[in-house]
Amino acid sequence: MTSTTTWNVYLSGEIHTDWRETIAAACAARKLPVAFSAPVTDHEASDDCGVAILGAEPNKFWHDRKGAQLNAIRTRTLLEKADVVVVRFGEKYRQWNAAFDAGYAAALGKPLIILHGPDHAHALKEVDAAALAVAETPEQVAALLAYAVTGRLDG
Amino acid sequence: MTSTTTWNVYLSGEIHTDWRETIAAACAARKLPVAFSAPVTDHEASDDCGVAILGAEPNKFWHDRKGAQLNAIRTRTLLEKADVVVVRFGEKYRQWNAAFDAGYAAALGKPLIILHGPDHAHALKEVDAAALAVAETPEQVAALLAYAVTGRLDG
Amino acid sequence: MTSTTTWNVYLSGEIHTDWRETIAAACAARKLPVAFSAPVTDHEASDDCGVAILGAEPNKFWHDRKGAQLNAIRTRTLLEKADVVVVRFGEKYRQWNAAFDAGYAAALGKPLIILHGPDHAHALKEVDAAALAVAETPEQVAALLAYAVTGRLDG
Amino acid sequence: MTSTTTWNVYLSGEIHTDWRETIAAACAARKLPVAFSAPVTDHEASDDCGVAILGAEPNKFWHDRKGAQLNAIRTRTLLEKADVVVVRFGEKYRQWNAAFDAGYAAALGKPLIILHGPDHAHALKEVDAAALAVAETPEQVAALLAYAVTGRLDG
Amino acid sequence: MTSTTTWNVYLSGEIHTDWRETIAAACAARKLPVAFSAPVTDHEASDDCGVAILGAEPNKFWHDRKGAQLNAIRTRTLLEKADVVVVRFGEKYRQWNAAFDAGYAAALGKPLIILHGPDHAHALKEVDAAALAVAETPEQVAALLAYAVTGRLDG
Amino acid sequence: MTSTTTWNVYLSGEIHTDWRETIAAACAARKLPVAFSAPVTDHEASDDCGVAILGAEPNKFWHDRKGAQLNAIRTRTLLEKADVVVVRFGEKYRQWNAAFDAGYAAALGKPLIILHGPDHAHALKEVDAAALAVAETPEQVAALLAYAVTGRLDG
Amino acid sequence: MTSTTTWNVYLSGEIHTDWRETIAAACAARKLPVAFSAPVTDHEASDDCGVAILGAEPNKFWHDRKGAQLNAIRTRTLLEKADVVVVRFGEKYRQWNAAFDAGYAAALGKPLIILHGPDHAHALKEVDAAALAVAETPEQVAALLAYAVTGRLDG
Amino acid sequence: MTSTTTWNVYLSGEIHTDWRETIAAACAARKLPVAFSAPVTDHEASDDCGVAILGAEPNKFWHDRKGAQLNAIRTRTLLEKADVVVVRFGEKYRQWNAAFDAGYAAALGKPLIILHGPDHAHALKEVDAAALAVAETPEQVAALLAYAVTGRLDG
Repeated sequence: MTSTTTWNVYLSGEIHTDWRETIAAACAARKLPVAFSAPVTDHEASDDCGVAILGAEPNKFWHDRKGAQLNAIRTRTLLEKADVVVVRFGEKYRQWNAAFDAGYAAALGKPLIILHGPDHAHALKEVDAAALAVAETPEQVAALLAYAVTGRLDG
Repeated sequence: MTSTTTWNVYLSGEIHTDWRETIAAACAARKLPVAFSAPVTDHEASDDCGVAILGAEPNKFWHDRKGAQLNAIRTRTLLEKADVVVVRFGEKYRQWNAAFDAGYAAALGKPLIILHGPDHAHALKEVDAAALAVAETPEQVAALLAYAVTGRLDG
Repeated sequence: MTSTTTWNVYLSGEIHTDWRETIAAACAARKLPVAFSAPVTDHEASDDCGVAILGAEPNKFWHDRKGAQLNAIRTRTLLEKADVVVVRFGEKYRQWNAAFDAGYAAALGKPLIILHGPDHAHALKEVDAAALAVAETPEQVAALLAYAVTGRLDG
Repeated sequence: MTSTTTWNVYLSGEIHTDWRETIAAACAARKLPVAFSAPVTDHEASDDCGVAILGAEPNKFWHDRKGAQLNAIRTRTLLEKADVVVVRFGEKYRQWNAAFDAGYAAALGKPLIILHGPDHAHALKEVDAAALAVAETPEQVAALLAYAVTGRLDG
Repeated sequence: MTSTTTWNVYLSGEIHTDWRETIAAACAARKLPVAFSAPVTDHEASDDCGVAILGAEPNKFWHDRKGAQLNAIRTRTLLEKADVVVVRFGEKYRQWNAAFDAGYAAALGKPLIILHGPDHAHALKEVDAAALAVAETPEQVAALLAYAVTGRLDG
Repeated sequence: MTSTTTWNVYLSGEIHTDWRETIAAACAARKLPVAFSAPVTDHEASDDCGVAILGAEPNKFWHDRKGAQLNAIRTRTLLEKADVVVVRFGEKYRQWNAAFDAGYAAALGKPLIILHGPDHAHALKEVDAAALAVAETPEQVAALLAYAVTGRLDG
Repeated sequence: MTSTTTWNVYLSGEIHTDWRETIAAACAARKLPVAFSAPVTDHEASDDCGVAILGAEPNKFWHDRKGAQLNAIRTRTLLEKADVVVVRFGEKYRQWNAAFDAGYAAALGKPLIILHGPDHAHALKEVDAAALAVAETPEQVAALLAYAVTGRLDG
Repeated sequence: MTSTTTWNVYLSGEIHTDWRETIAAACAARKLPVAFSAPVTDHEASDDCGVAILGAEPNKFWHDRKGAQLNAIRTRTLLEKADVVVVRFGEKYRQWNAAFDAGYAAALGKPLIILHGPDHAHALKEVDAAALAVAETPEQVAALLAYAVTGRLDG
């Protein structure tokens, strides 16, 4: 009994590799009824959007605040609309916003998939423990989504 | 005043007989605006999906856990989207996941229909008591849905 | 700024006059984007649906229970989906289910419109006090909906 | 395993007989940890409180509205705090506020007990169908509460 | 990863200038998938709708009440459906309903954008502090929405 | 049936007269089980708390933001804990935070009492329409609370 | 930083062994601030409470329904009040009400501990997958609670 | 108007310095009615609790999972009970669980205070943007709490 509803999947976290496109392409190849959304993935825009639109701030703290709050308009709206939330932790940076999004999604009761390499397993154990799946590759995430959406396990 | 909205009906529980198809066919024959969804009904896929996608586990407990959590991505998403939840208890097996789904649906306030033979009536009394209807056959479920959706009692 | 979304309006209460059709026709004449839904308005079907579908009950109390619970599958689903709930109290009968629906809708925070003649005003004061409008005629309800949906006052 | 928490029980509905005192006395005799609350049971005060405190209204409709809204401050606060809600329907009057309270409590997911004589069974079938118990006497309600609170069935 | 879902944006507050049309035009020029809604912006209709539809009231207080409650049918329905809420404070009048809507939206967890001139900054500090953005011009609001919806910062 | 639970009442709004003390004294004189809470009523502290504790801000906008957010820690916590919310509008200032609190309380479903002089009636009609009582004097508020809490109308 | 709040723990499921007393004694020995509650554990009372209090039913189905609904008054009230829910599956019977309670608790977001022997692991995998701990002995449950409540791991 | 209710404050995050004790001591010196709670702050216990209580796991991933889920029993229970949540980010480690807790608290609508040194300001901007206060020292947090709880700004 194949669900024909479109599933909304929010892809949070790391923005320096093409993991989102990999997942999207692998789902498109399977013709899955999945619509993806994501935070702003242009790092510079994400940092500077606040002052670019609302005016400059000499103090870096408020420069950052203005931008982070604009980003939250997008992030929270899309995260609330999502059926499933995927959060990827990459190799670099603190990525606290990724963990924040994971906590936010968990508190909303969204099914959560965490994607990271084995090196981060211990540091992410509290986050992983809130997830319904912990994957190591984008291909696994696509396979997970295919299974969840179609109810069938690929050949 | 006939509702024209599509009703989402989630068909939880027993996966070894064709009761879902019977209900769906009986609703299709009545041209009801009903969309059905269901958990994964391929028993083997349901057991092994976790390790098939995310890697083998030597310990059966974690083998099962990985699979059960993948199934939950599908189950909870579809159950949350459902307007009405039908849970069938068959003749065999423990079927604790069916009872779990019934409890989950009840706590979400979803209208609940339980489907089982008369032999299970006493053992299922707490579950039946949370339901708005207790049916014995898939045909009754289809008739119930027809009545709920169209507001008319057939011939 | 005219809203183009369809508004779902649930018409609860009295089932022995054609007030629902009057409202629907008056809204259709105004080409409002409103979709109506209603409980089962065939009194006999509403009383007997339970035993007709699920089997006879010698005890009238359980005969009624079976039917009332089937009706609740329809009622609660449509009431939850509604943007606005209208409840009409007619001249006859106890109409406790109408008042029950009004309380249910109020607790869900649905905008509530109560429709009744002036004779019932005192007896309905607690119900009216939970409403955003108290109308005396179906035409007033249609005018209210037109105003709420289009944001414009006719004529 | 006897619960020692106090249970809050809201006694809604009919205000012309001493059914509340009967239940309270029967629970006190059993030394149950139950605290009762109720709407205003002085009919005249309940009708006139609004204008008595906030100033006269020449129009009866607004006289009633002012009073009904004051009553709602009490009713909703106590109903929200309640663990269990009992609603009694007496022999006389329309009692739409009783049915309204039952619907309100049902939508909040409160365990609901309905108390009425057998004559009203058919007219109250939709309300009864939302309840976990339908009793005919205050003594039965006290016995129900004793069972729910202590987990023991009296000799 | 461009979201293709339509975003519902509710434009609350000041009704004496064309700021809503300015935002809508600027979003239309960018071809954004945004649908706008608004309270009734015809001041006279907003004041008199209640008595026009439901009958005259000699007492101004109840004249106003009837109208304000009709307006609330529209306002709350659209505000609940909104993904993002924008509230504008103009130069004149008390505009308490604008601040009320901002509080209402904040309690619902809606992303909130406040639009006002610099003169009101101190008086609006509690309201601004609940917002994700504080803009001074409609053009800024359009730019904010473009960023939130497309995830891209305009040239 | 007198409720013995303590009622939590949050007194929001105007901070330049002693209306809170008047209500509290009038309730104390009646020995009501009511506990009052309030926002910070020291105007200067309320304006400057942010910079006093967290460090100076040269920009007035962020000076205000820091303070307003500290105030929100208190306000939202107490407002969420309240059973009943009273909001007073005085003669002076914009008082947008009062209207914001009223909207916030309304969206949370808190019983709302608005207190203001007759001059503000028209400007506050949308706010009043969300309230269960509109009072003109603190004495009326105390009388309302006495009635709601004890269920008895004073001699 | 030891929490001094009392934790409410609901002990659902199997009623034919003394596992509840074992957990309670082990927690008492550790002087933990934990209050336990449970469903009715007298099997006969649990089956017959409905008819004993509300009158006999010739039809076994309704005999069971009456009892199951009375039990639900207790069960749902205590389960809603619980901070943590423990569900035990024993060796015998279908125990569908245990699985139902687990699903109900999961949907409410209650931290869930499942207690069962290794033989049931596969059949319970969907239920276990919703739990934060799967224990095999009552002693383990007591140790878990001690850790969760005190934040210290016993010697 | 001094609130006399006890405020529950959850202190999440970094566990290698004595910041919790500093805040608690500073609040105790002010005699504030504040009760603190915290996650398990014994790093080793936090890592090994799962296997210590429920049995060893050869695979480190499941060793971590068991422990992380036990910790979640404590964390989520205390976080849900909290009125205010403070999250500290220290100098070392990834601290993803701190950011996860901040997201979790934000989605629950808890007033959030973030505590970190200036070096982390940019990396934490999304987290800070969800907070009502960003402090640099435990003393500032104590001063904030004193202000929020008493409504008075210390000399």
